[in-house]
Amino acid sequence: MNKVDHIGIAVKSIDESVNYYIDTLGLTVIAIEEVASQGVKVAFIDAHNVKIELLEPMTETSPIAKFIEKRGEGVHHVAFGVTDIRSRMKELEEKGVQLLSDEPKPGAGGAEVAFLHPKSSYGVLYELCEKTKGE
Amino acid sequence: MNKVDHIGIAVKSIDESVNYYIDTLGLTVIAIEEVASQGVKVAFIDAHNVKIELLEPMTETSPIAKFIEKRGEGVHHVAFGVTDIRSRMKELEEKGVQLLSDEPKPGAGGAEVAFLHPKSSYGVLYELCEKTKGE
Repeated sequence: MNKVDHIGIAVKSIDESVNYYIDTLGLTVIAIEEVASQGVKVAFIDAHNVKIELLEPMTETSPIAKFIEKRGEGVHHVAFGVTDIRSRMKELEEKGVQLLSDEPKPGAGGAEVAFLHPKSSYGVLYELCEKTKGE
Repeated sequence: MNKVDHIGIAVKSIDESVNYYIDTLGLTVIAIEEVASQGVKVAFIDAHNVKIELLEPMTETSPIAKFIEKRGEGVHHVAFGVTDIRSRMKELEEKGVQLLSDEPKPGAGGAEVAFLHPKSSYGVLYELCEKTKGE
């Protein structure tokens, strides 16, 4: 497990919330993109040692929409950077961790990602995140 | 606002959950201490670029006990390191941010801490954290 890559935060609207991070907290936006496969719009914010990833649902059925409906806006996941994500997934499974998918999925920023079930992780949705496009 | 100092995670029991971070995720514990003023036992875990702070309630009336009762275990707050915390609090108030206290309070690791109301921060409980004892 490498360092923490980003903290994912579910928001209703990036347009509404991003200025809080820029104007009030004094941070800067790295990139805004849409990840159609996950049904989210994403804004990456530079918090110096980690990124803050704002996640806005693009559809009513996206996991982020369901999260906000159930719990409101707030921290959604914490992502560790990894190398060789498939080996990390296998190791964690062998240690009894429940994963949310058998294979990595495409994430924001050209990454491959996989999630650990919060029931395995004492309530935290942890993500494994492997950068693949020269980041 | 400096870098993210730590991610605070509410757990029912540090004894039960800390081994997940050590044995399963391969991280190391920096320190375990009790912060009587906040009614919590705290374990700091080294996640390389940030710390993970496990927070176990020591009393039924502590904010962490109430958080777990309402939402279950999970991410409780995200802490930014700051210098001159009183000036940062004043600046944020002038920008319309609601703070949870007028003065900084003693936190874990000899820090002075103050919290931003999640209603001001799009659902996230952000902490300002100033190290004061040579850390």
